[in-house]
Amino acid sequence: MVEENAVKRSEKAGGKVYLALLHYPVYNRNREVVITALTNLDVHDIARAAKTYGVEKFYVITPAKSQQRLLKRILDHWISGVGGEYNPERKAALELVDVASSLEDLIVDLTVEERRKPLVIFTSAKMGKNAISFARLKEKYKKGADLLLVFGTGWGLAEEIFEQGDFLLEPIRGIGEYNHLAVRSAVAIILDRLFGR
Amino acid sequence: MVEENAVKRSEKAGGKVYLALLHYPVYNRNREVVITALTNLDVHDIARAAKTYGVEKFYVITPAKSQQRLLKRILDHWISGVGGEYNPERKAALELVDVASSLEDLIVDLTVEERRKPLVIFTSAKMGKNAISFARLKEKYKKGADLLLVFGTGWGLAEEIFEQGDFLLEPIRGIGEYNHLAVRSAVAIILDRLFGR
Repeated sequence: MVEENAVKRSEKAGGKVYLALLHYPVYNRNREVVITALTNLDVHDIARAAKTYGVEKFYVITPAKSQQRLLKRILDHWISGVGGEYNPERKAALELVDVASSLEDLIVDLTVEERRKPLVIFTSAKMGKNAISFARLKEKYKKGADLLLVFGTGWGLAEEIFEQGDFLLEPIRGIGEYNHLAVRSAVAIILDRLFGR
Repeated sequence: MVEENAVKRSEKAGGKVYLALLHYPVYNRNREVVITALTNLDVHDIARAAKTYGVEKFYVITPAKSQQRLLKRILDHWISGVGGEYNPERKAALELVDVASSLEDLIVDLTVEERRKPLVIFTSAKMGKNAISFARLKEKYKKGADLLLVFGTGWGLAEEIFEQGDFLLEPIRGIGEYNHLAVRSAVAIILDRLFGR
């Protein structure tokens, strides 16, 4: 496992990459800050994309203990349970998933573990302060920066949390003004833009 | 609506783009050719990505009448029902969705309607005959070719259907050998590579 990761990193020739999917603090449709519920398919799709693009770890972040237990049950099924025997590719992806109680805790843990702070990059469908382009972020990564890419659920990340980060990644733009991609799709596109061949 | 599409096409400066998601003929995990069941989230995620990247129409293809009726009920809910009032962005995306009984029928219909045959492009996680790169396909599209991008469900498109198409798009590659993206993620990445800014 260690060797496999070593090969991957040298292929990528950059720092380490972590993903976080936040279930709090995020907006609901009335722009109230809420905790959203886990979506099983978010975990699966994002884990598979993470595995495809050499991500180290994908953290599902929720302060709700019942939701943390639910996630662990899903992971157990696919990693040590019958799901893993049935579908080893799914197992390989879900082994990247872990849970955290808050973004703050996760940043501290990663910083202690790696002895340096990763660049914390928020994503959003809208432009905002401290924006960084895909090209500039790719450059920083190639020079060796570790990245923690943060995605929101519900109607997007509550702006109060942007203070904990370094940059806001420029929004994905398609054709025209429509910008309502599923978070599952946004993760896939962003990983491909940054790390795809 | 006509004007809006006209603006979009001139922004894209290419032909028209159609998507098809096939529920038959596709493989199951034992490589038997089967009809797969509709997945509600496939319809939503792919419709939203299609809307983002200026796709004309997204066809869900299944020969099963009960599945066709199920799709129509989902669309009714979000387009003319309460779902559309609750979430107009979802409505705008799902208005692109339509049903077809087979790929063959769809190709005939599009050819009659547009008075020319679109390039039929299959997608797969594996390389095969008649492969085309993203760069070459983009070029053909920019020169004005209409594209019908065909995606499979289950364990992928049954190879027998490749005879109906013009090209097989090169597989998405990330880091290493893992190539088990969800079809929802693959659609998002392919649209972004071909039409993203």
